[in-house]
Parts: sequence; C-alpha cells; structure tokens
Amino acid sequence: MKIETKIARFTKPLYLESGRILEPWQIIYETYGELNEDKSNVILITHALSGSHHAAGKYEGDRKPGWWDSLIGKGKAIDTEKYFVISTNVIGSCFGSTGPMSPIYPGSDERYRLKFPVITIKDMVKAQKILLDSLGIKKLKAVIGGSMGGMQALRLAVDYPGFAENIIPIATTYQTKPYVIAINKSMIETIRADSEFKNGNYKPGTELKGLAAARMIGYLNYISPSTFEKKFGREYVKTDGMFELFGRFQVESYLEYNGANFPKWFDALSYIYLLKAISLFDISRGFNSLDEAFSQIKDKLFLISFSGDTLFFPQEMRDIKKYMDKVGGKCQYFEIDSDYGHDSFLVEVDKFDYLISEILKGDLDARF
Amino acid sequence: MKIETKIARFTKPLYLESGRILEPWQIIYETYGELNEDKSNVILITHALSGSHHAAGKYEGDRKPGWWDSLIGKGKAIDTEKYFVISTNVIGSCFGSTGPMSPIYPGSDERYRLKFPVITIKDMVKAQKILLDSLGIKKLKAVIGGSMGGMQALRLAVDYPGFAENIIPIATTYQTKPYVIAINKSMIETIRADSEFKNGNYKPGTELKGLAAARMIGYLNYISPSTFEKKFGREYVKTDGMFELFGRFQVESYLEYNGANFPKWFDALSYIYLLKAISLFDISRGFNSLDEAFSQIKDKLFLISFSGDTLFFPQEMRDIKKYMDKVGGKCQYFEIDSDYGHDSFLVEVDKFDYLISEILKGDLDARF
Repeated sequence: MKIETKIARFTKPLYLESGRILEPWQIIYETYGELNEDKSNVILITHALSGSHHAAGKYEGDRKPGWWDSLIGKGKAIDTEKYFVISTNVIGSCFGSTGPMSPIYPGSDERYRLKFPVITIKDMVKAQKILLDSLGIKKLKAVIGGSMGGMQALRLAVDYPGFAENIIPIATTYQTKPYVIAINKSMIETIRADSEFKNGNYKPGTELKGLAAARMIGYLNYISPSTFEKKFGREYVKTDGMFELFGRFQVESYLEYNGANFPKWFDALSYIYLLKAISLFDISRGFNSLDEAFSQIKDKLFLISFSGDTLFFPQEMRDIKKYMDKVGGKCQYFEIDSDYGHDSFLVEVDKFDYLISEILKGDLDARF
Repeated sequence: MKIETKIARFTKPLYLESGRILEPWQIIYETYGELNEDKSNVILITHALSGSHHAAGKYEGDRKPGWWDSLIGKGKAIDTEKYFVISTNVIGSCFGSTGPMSPIYPGSDERYRLKFPVITIKDMVKAQKILLDSLGIKKLKAVIGGSMGGMQALRLAVDYPGFAENIIPIATTYQTKPYVIAINKSMIETIRADSEFKNGNYKPGTELKGLAAARMIGYLNYISPSTFEKKFGREYVKTDGMFELFGRFQVESYLEYNGANFPKWFDALSYIYLLKAISLFDISRGFNSLDEAFSQIKDKLFLISFSGDTLFFPQEMRDIKKYMDKVGGKCQYFEIDSDYGHDSFLVEVDKFDYLISEILKGDLDARF
C-alpha cells in the first residue's frame, strides 16, 4: 500500500463559524492508494478526538499501525487497490494541522495558545473541503468517520450536499447531549486545575498530570461497564499492597498507564479545543430546525451504531434515521450488537467492515 | 424533633482491617427522637461518600436541612416520635470523626495526612458498633443507608449477625465493580494532579481546584444521561459567548458551581480515603466465597434499587437477592422505577419512603 504524507498550506484566510479567521493555515494529511484518472475513487476518512491523519499503515520503526488499519488497506473493506483514501488531521489538533500551538503569525516565536479561535466541526469540514478542492477532487465516493469523525461526515453531508456519494457516520450523534458536554467539561476543568497548565502558557511538551487525569475520565466512557468487568474484574496488582492508599487494582494500573502516556503524544490545548468543538456540535446550527438541517442531505446516508455505546447512545442515531425518514432522505440504519462500548468503532471493525464494503460496492442501494 | 450532636472519644485502639490501629479515635454523631426504656427503638443511619452525621433537621441559621430530612422526622417514614435515630460520621471523613486531617497523636500540631491508615467499610461499621456498645444498645431496629451507606448496612449484616432486626441497603452493591473503581481512580488522580495538593501537604481549608474537578466527575455518575437532558438540554449561559473557549452551556455552569463549592465543605484527603474504601469494598473479603459471606446474614434483608442507577446498577442488587435465595437467607428485593440516576436515594425519597415505613412496621414480614 502506497502511503504519502503531505502538508497543504493556504494563504487565503479560512473564515470560521465564530466570525474569526485563520490566516495562513495548513492541513496535514495522508493518502493511501492511487487516485484514478477521473478522480472518482476518493474516500475521505475523518478522525475522532485523539485521532490523527495516520489512519492506516506503518511508518518505519512503528510498533503499531494507524488507528483504522484493520479497515483500510489492500483487500480490506476500504480497499486501497480500488480507492484513493485521504485522511486529514483536523484543524485545532496537534499533529501538523494549524492548531493552538501553531505560531500566531508566520515566523513568530509566539504561539496562539488561548488566543486560538474556537474551531467547530463545520470549520474542520470546511478546511477539508478546501483541501479537496485544491486537489481538483469534485466528488467523493464516500466520507467515513467514527465519533467526532462521524460528526464531520454528517456535517459534510449537510453543508456540501451532492459532494459525497456515500456518507457513513459511525458511533456518533447529530447534537451533542448535555451528558457528553458534562464529561467534556470535567475533562477541561481537570486540565485547568493542574497549575502546571498555567492558563495555557505551559512549555510545549510538558507532560501535564491534569491531561493524564483527563484522559482517564475519557476512558470511563470509551468502554462499557461490562467491558471493564470482563477486562479487569477486581484483580489487584500483585506487587501492590491491598491496604496501601495508592495500591492499585489492575483497572487502575491500566488507567494510570494510558493516562500517563497520553501527554507524551497529545497536546493539552488541542484537547480542550477539540472537546469544545464536540460540545458545540449541533447539526441544526445555522438552520431553523433539525428537519431543515436534515433536509439538506441529498446523498446516501448509512448510519452505524453500537448497541453498547454508552457515550453516543444508539437512540441518538435512531433519531437521525427518524428525521431522515420524515424529510424523505435516503438513509439506512445499522445497529451492531455489541456490549464493548463506544470504542467499538475502533476495536470491533470485524463486526461492521462487511457493511462498509457492501455500501461502497453499492450492494445496499436496492434497499432505498 | 429533638436533635443532639455528640462526640464519643475512645482511648482503646481501634483495630483496622489493614492490621493498623487508630488510637485514640473519636466519632461524631447526631441523634433524633428519644431512646425508649428497653433501648429497643434504635435505628442506625449510614451515610454516603460526601454525607455526614447531619442527616435530618436544621441547625440555627441553616438554609438546608440534613441530607435525608425527607425520610427522618416526626410523622415521616423514619418517625422520630417512635424511633431513636443515630447517625454517625464515618471514620475517615471530615466532619468530626477521626480522619486524615486529625492530629497524629493527641495534642500534636502534626496531622496524619497520608500517614492515615487505609479505612475500609468494615472498619467504619466496627467503629459504629463500638459506639453503639458504649451506649448500651444491644440491638438495632434497623440499619438504613444508601450508596456507601448501603455498603455499611450490608457489612453490618454480615459482620454482626443478629444485631439489626432489619437491614435496608439502598442503591448499592456487594462488591465494587471495576467501572466504579475506575471512576474513583480518575477522581483520585484529578486531585493528585493539582500541584496545590502537594502530595497531601496542602494547608487545611485550601480550596483545591483538583477537588472541584473531581467532584464534577462524580456528578457525571450521580444523575443519569436522561436527567442531564431534562434538567439542562443544550441551553447556553445567556451572558457567555457561544464561540468563547470557556463560554458555558448551562450544564457546565451547574458543574462549575457545584464543583467550586465542594472544597469549601469537604476535605481532599478524606475524599481520597473514602473513595479508596469504596473501591476496596467486597462483602466476601475475609470469607472463602460470596456464598459464605451472604450465609452469615441472619436478619431480614430488604434491598432497594433504582432502575435508572448508572453507578450501582440494579443488576448488582438483584445478584445479592440471588445469593441470599441460594443460601436460604431472608431477603426481599424492590426495584423502584426511575430514570433519575444514582442520586434517586437522596432526591426521590417519595418513591420509596412508604417501603421503609412498611418494613419498620413489620408489614412486609409475611412475604418471607
């Protein structure tokens, strides 16, 4: 599989939903496979909160492949022998696209930090659209993403009707619910409570304990209570004392490990900005109603949810199906039986990859 | 209603489950109503994580009454005209019973802090039993508590069979599950990530931001996602800007308010010690099996759970009923239909107070 990593730089301002601008700005992306002659085989992959453009394959020396490697590659559901796959890092993130740690103007030593404008899902999609335009891509075969990536897929369907043939949002919602806003808030405040955060003025690369703790909070919602039970039970770390205050159950050791690692590869300000983008997500913003928003969608919408998702509940995606039926849109809803939890979209690819494959082949079109 | 607040001081060591001792130690408690002549009308109330001995009534100048005032009082389900109610503050807490901020020895300016021994639910109950013994109380009419208070009720049933006529654990479990251990861990690490915590050496009374953030995490699990939806929806604070990074949805403002208040009345070290006690809770510790533990219970066990409890799931209390049936114990299980969430035991007293009343009158005994 041919992987290329590129950075696209834009000098024209990016007009944001907030009324503010980014100028200049850049977007980093990977591509897998080959673009065909009429540019009709393009699939856009959109990533989740802590994801990156690195969705598939391995760089030299990597232990682990990209985050959706089980879905994307030669002979896989998103077959790189057939499709040209583009995976971008969203603006606001920290892997090379413009974000809060970018220089406040070209050549400056000063970084945006808290002066960075609030970014919305709409803005992320707009930036991706500008990139695709610049590559001469007039039409997508599909846009596919889970969680925050699913929000982008849905937003693209509403904001650019007719642009993508197939829209595949997975494990997501149409409007972030107050429960998830509350989770995001507790993570944001956990980061801010760490005085090393210094109101955003920490030295880049500082391994903030507040960010590690915030990541632990996230984990509580990425896997379900029953997955916690199956994975860890009440096993205690053998070398820890049961009656030591900071002695650990296995589940605590797991959280500590993943929490402590997170600040090594993710930036605290980006985390806050992306959480804000998720909390602000509402497909109806800019329209008079949800009906009006959903009635924009002209393309085929395929929804995939997981029965055991305790972050974006299946009911939220069933609601999208109801709205689409009401406004007469083309929509199919699939609920995958699973008690794993929200992270099913990353971990249980074998439960839904056949669907992606069938959608891309057009096998499911007859159902409309 | 007659309220008295007392402190009982003990010079004999309290032998803890960890093998360590507290010496001397004290327990603060309130009583409501009058002890009858043969001391046969005593009800013990056991509190939850952030609770205190102040379960009912008002002190002069108080805006709010005690935390279970809707349940305890003249003419209420726990009728103080009939019963003598004792409500203690658990050891390890911060309202007057011996805890991590107590002097390390009498007259010392040094506080225990992280040198305080790990306390378990068993230890809390043992301390309460010693208090009751010292008051000449040979038998309880009932022990009643929710959440961590329910763990104490269950522990008392197992450790002191025959001591309480009626055991009423509410919204609790028999063995803290890894999901709840994970929640507790994320709260503990959020406190530790605040460098003002200073590894437990903060100045008493410091309003730690880490503790405020930890409290927010707690709230995510005290009410259910649907209660978040009903209470807050996606309402935004009117004076905040939608595209300000720290602009707030109403739910965020609510969490901020409750979070920021918490360190004004609760101590961070006590919070950590009590979370540890909850994580360690396992009714079978000290026995060969859960069967063996449950077979100790000789008294009438009445379990009350809430269908919408997303912290201690109803299934966990149904499991207790199964174990009790298996070992031939006296047990009745009641599941209150509610989608409010875990805090139902505090907020929806009107949905289950009739049960408490019937249990105390013996009206439900015929069902055994």
